[in-house]
Amino acid sequence: MDRAQFVEMDRQDPLAGFRARFAIPEPDIIYLDGNSLGRMPLAVTERMEQVAQEWSQGLVRSWGEGWMDMPHRIGDKIAQVIGAGPGEVLLADSTTVCLYKLVSAALAARPERTVIVTDDLNFPSDLYILQAVATEAGAEVRVVQSQDGLSIDADELDMALGPEVALVSLSHTAFKSGFLYDGAAITALAQQHGAWMLWDLSHSAGAVPVALNEWGAEMAVGCTYKYLNGGPGAPAYLYARSGLHPELTNPIPGWLGHADPFSFDLNYSSQPGIGRMTTGTPPIVAMAMVEPGIDLVLEAGIEKLREKSIRQTDLLVSLWREKLEGLGVSLRSPQRVERRGSHVSLGHPDGLQIARWLIEERNVIPDFRKPDSIRFGVTPLYTTYAELWDAVEALREGLESGDYRRTDTHSVSVT
Amino acid sequence: MDRAQFVEMDRQDPLAGFRARFAIPEPDIIYLDGNSLGRMPLAVTERMEQVAQEWSQGLVRSWGEGWMDMPHRIGDKIAQVIGAGPGEVLLADSTTVCLYKLVSAALAARPERTVIVTDDLNFPSDLYILQAVATEAGAEVRVVQSQDGLSIDADELDMALGPEVALVSLSHTAFKSGFLYDGAAITALAQQHGAWMLWDLSHSAGAVPVALNEWGAEMAVGCTYKYLNGGPGAPAYLYARSGLHPELTNPIPGWLGHADPFSFDLNYSSQPGIGRMTTGTPPIVAMAMVEPGIDLVLEAGIEKLREKSIRQTDLLVSLWREKLEGLGVSLRSPQRVERRGSHVSLGHPDGLQIARWLIEERNVIPDFRKPDSIRFGVTPLYTTYAELWDAVEALREGLESGDYRRTDTHSVSVT
Repeated sequence: MDRAQFVEMDRQDPLAGFRARFAIPEPDIIYLDGNSLGRMPLAVTERMEQVAQEWSQGLVRSWGEGWMDMPHRIGDKIAQVIGAGPGEVLLADSTTVCLYKLVSAALAARPERTVIVTDDLNFPSDLYILQAVATEAGAEVRVVQSQDGLSIDADELDMALGPEVALVSLSHTAFKSGFLYDGAAITALAQQHGAWMLWDLSHSAGAVPVALNEWGAEMAVGCTYKYLNGGPGAPAYLYARSGLHPELTNPIPGWLGHADPFSFDLNYSSQPGIGRMTTGTPPIVAMAMVEPGIDLVLEAGIEKLREKSIRQTDLLVSLWREKLEGLGVSLRSPQRVERRGSHVSLGHPDGLQIARWLIEERNVIPDFRKPDSIRFGVTPLYTTYAELWDAVEALREGLESGDYRRTDTHSVSVT
Repeated sequence: MDRAQFVEMDRQDPLAGFRARFAIPEPDIIYLDGNSLGRMPLAVTERMEQVAQEWSQGLVRSWGEGWMDMPHRIGDKIAQVIGAGPGEVLLADSTTVCLYKLVSAALAARPERTVIVTDDLNFPSDLYILQAVATEAGAEVRVVQSQDGLSIDADELDMALGPEVALVSLSHTAFKSGFLYDGAAITALAQQHGAWMLWDLSHSAGAVPVALNEWGAEMAVGCTYKYLNGGPGAPAYLYARSGLHPELTNPIPGWLGHADPFSFDLNYSSQPGIGRMTTGTPPIVAMAMVEPGIDLVLEAGIEKLREKSIRQTDLLVSLWREKLEGLGVSLRSPQRVERRGSHVSLGHPDGLQIARWLIEERNVIPDFRKPDSIRFGVTPLYTTYAELWDAVEALREGLESGDYRRTDTHSVSVT
């Protein structure tokens, strides 16, 4: 393989035009951390001006002219990305707060079942929430341990299931290794045991196909600032299958989830649909910023995005084998592409120092996850093939020269 | 009184210059709903451009260059507005989620006490949260009923207190009548009974002096989009007295409240300070928008703001007596200025229709609260004296002519 081949792949890339839809100063860094914070779509600038006008000129009148409905309208767009129907997805609070609401509602809906099953590949916040809600409800959390630290077999999960399990809560794509669960199969497995299935789609939505309705999944949450490019700490979404809505109690009830908010009723009475999971007044400015990124994903089409993502992560694995394996770098992601999301983790004992060196000395931005993983995330909307070649070359050079060892790791802030 | 006197008051107003710091198209509507959504400070535009640059160019590196600390840094500025110390205030989720966290933490910290005391002037969301948390914790909510629908006597509150009360949770300024509690006296009263005091400052911060430390209050929450002018649905803040932090358990624990977030520890271990109440990744774009409004309040000074607010609400009461009382309008706010926040509510059986007519036909924007209250809010940073005169004149003309009766109230969306 040589660089010319990668340049040629860019030339032939049917998605190549999307890169110009993002605010990218050229020449720029090589950004391989869209799985942490996606780049800013150019349309965000216009949207910012629009929302500033709605605020400064429309003032409270803007609530009646699009603001009040925004969590539902944008939620319905996200639904198209994750295979859900209209009225099933709500743009709401942070991912963690959304998860808290759904897990609480799930346990409350089925008090005869007292176990939540998850795995140790799940994002820490998810585990904290499961533990906190379980403790509060007198339930317990069963954490399936990964044997290889990278993935979980369906069989291992199956052994943790039984009639006592209320909920199976998993990250569809694992944040560290990029392991990708078979959404259909695992949802079916949970349901065979009568458990509800809750997917955290934070590292999936916008990068891999998700078909919540087709799988029959009961619940899901996800963040919007990774492959959906919604901005730092942008509002997250929650999904609940429409048939379940009447069974769900919002543990954090607020006036905008009330059936008639402007009655200012002193007693709570819940909205019928997904709106019942609303709590406070929606953060309009932040929500408005989320929409341009979702529009780009819908315009490109999730199948095409996945196709390019597969090709790009496959190339990263090939480049690793050709150039890095012999330099002491291990592959910390699944080799099988159908079990891999849109990032590749590379392990090295000096991983943190190497990641810092790449950022500071080579303008290559991956991120680092303890204990040893450098994550190379690809975002098919804007990641070029040439960037992958150049990033791996930079890494190879650093390892061969040992230059990275001169990097100070004291002021680490790789998010 | 005549209009010339009001124009003269504007000429002599020491705060008059602040109006030019807001994005106000002239000639404009008369906006008396800053107690629902404050106007947009001009500096927001610049701040939007700055945060767009931090996102598009700094990307994840911006987390280490100001983003991660933003909830604390802006929290410390809010602390100056509400009489708290550094490290005691966190900019976080919605007001309702912030309230949920603190109320849960309060009940968990003192399980031997099983009653929450509040009143029926409190905002509905607050009542829903108190009820939800109490139910979950096996506690109960005692709601003190206002005798006149406008205010609560300290004596009435006292009768509801006892050694079984864990928490007294009240809106410092009531959203409907504008009734203002004596913060020092009520905090002392709660504490005489060993209860913790939690103030909702949503309708106070930026308009009336608040001295949480001086009062010795344990907890507080508040929104930033009213008198702090932080934008629609902007992030709210929570306060807990520093000595209490070790006793507080966050019911919605997330990775950024962990003592060492980047360890990605599978077990939760809380930060020592107010940061322990953090849940998810902070909404940076929304938080950045909050700062310019707080800066303006600090620059003007809360004593000066209160002085003008008192003068303006007093004038509204005088104008009501002179021009409106005889037309069937009642005063639905306390007459005593020391018990009144920064809005005046006027009652009329056709209040909703009148409010719509003022908005649609006279470009005067108040808001309406069931069953009959038209709220005239004054925001001393930008409300002029002449606006008050003109608004009351418009209202008088509508009542005298009966013109407002032709207004359609079907499409009501007064927030």
